[in-house]
Amino acid sequence: MFMGVDHVGVAVKNLDEAVGVYRDILGFNLVGVHVLTERKVKVAFLSSGGETQIELLEPLGIDSPIAKFLENRGEGIHHVAVKVDDIEKALEELKKKGVMLVDEKPRKGVEGKKIAFVHPKSTKGVLLELVME
Amino acid sequence: MFMGVDHVGVAVKNLDEAVGVYRDILGFNLVGVHVLTERKVKVAFLSSGGETQIELLEPLGIDSPIAKFLENRGEGIHHVAVKVDDIEKALEELKKKGVMLVDEKPRKGVEGKKIAFVHPKSTKGVLLELVME
Repeated sequence: MFMGVDHVGVAVKNLDEAVGVYRDILGFNLVGVHVLTERKVKVAFLSSGGETQIELLEPLGIDSPIAKFLENRGEGIHHVAVKVDDIEKALEELKKKGVMLVDEKPRKGVEGKKIAFVHPKSTKGVLLELVME
Repeated sequence: MFMGVDHVGVAVKNLDEAVGVYRDILGFNLVGVHVLTERKVKVAFLSSGGETQIELLEPLGIDSPIAKFLENRGEGIHHVAVKVDDIEKALEELKKKGVMLVDEKPRKGVEGKKIAFVHPKSTKGVLLELVME
């Protein structure tokens, strides 16, 4: 079902500053920046040199889920996203096994991708994102 | 400098139970289990179907760093590990740039790998592990 880790999401207060740290100090390569109005986040993807990217997420507004995360936990790793070949089938199978889903139906990610989140209660505290290209 | 994400580490209270969830319910494949006496953890690596694995970590004893993490934050994502081709050089370069390091010298990881941790204060809250095979 899984085809590798697509990215690791990191919640940050200020995207420009965080991109500066990850690109200019740590040495990751900036791949792209997207404003996701529906999800109320501004994100930057950075290459790790392999198939798994780092996604930095800045909240857009105080009602953004990322704003809530920052308030509760501070900056840090927010989620991990795994690639799936068939997201509808994956969600159906997980649901059958009693896994709690944040999204029962996929929603729109960046660049036409379909995404859905699995609830941390079913994954030992990990917010798990499924991504289908 | 970076050659992809090696693994994402997840702190869990009970390794057997967590492996059950990740393998039997979520559908990851178990790759191996290691007891790391020096680091006071028992770990399981699971394949995501790609180059990046999931590492589940159970503390061995109350003075394990994972025990402290679980007490403060509960179960969840603990660190992200990136592959480097030359860990000594990477640590030197990061130190020159003023990055705070947990380990100034590499220490022994699983299967003869060399590892070192970068302090979350220099990475927007992310405990970043460097891994060299």
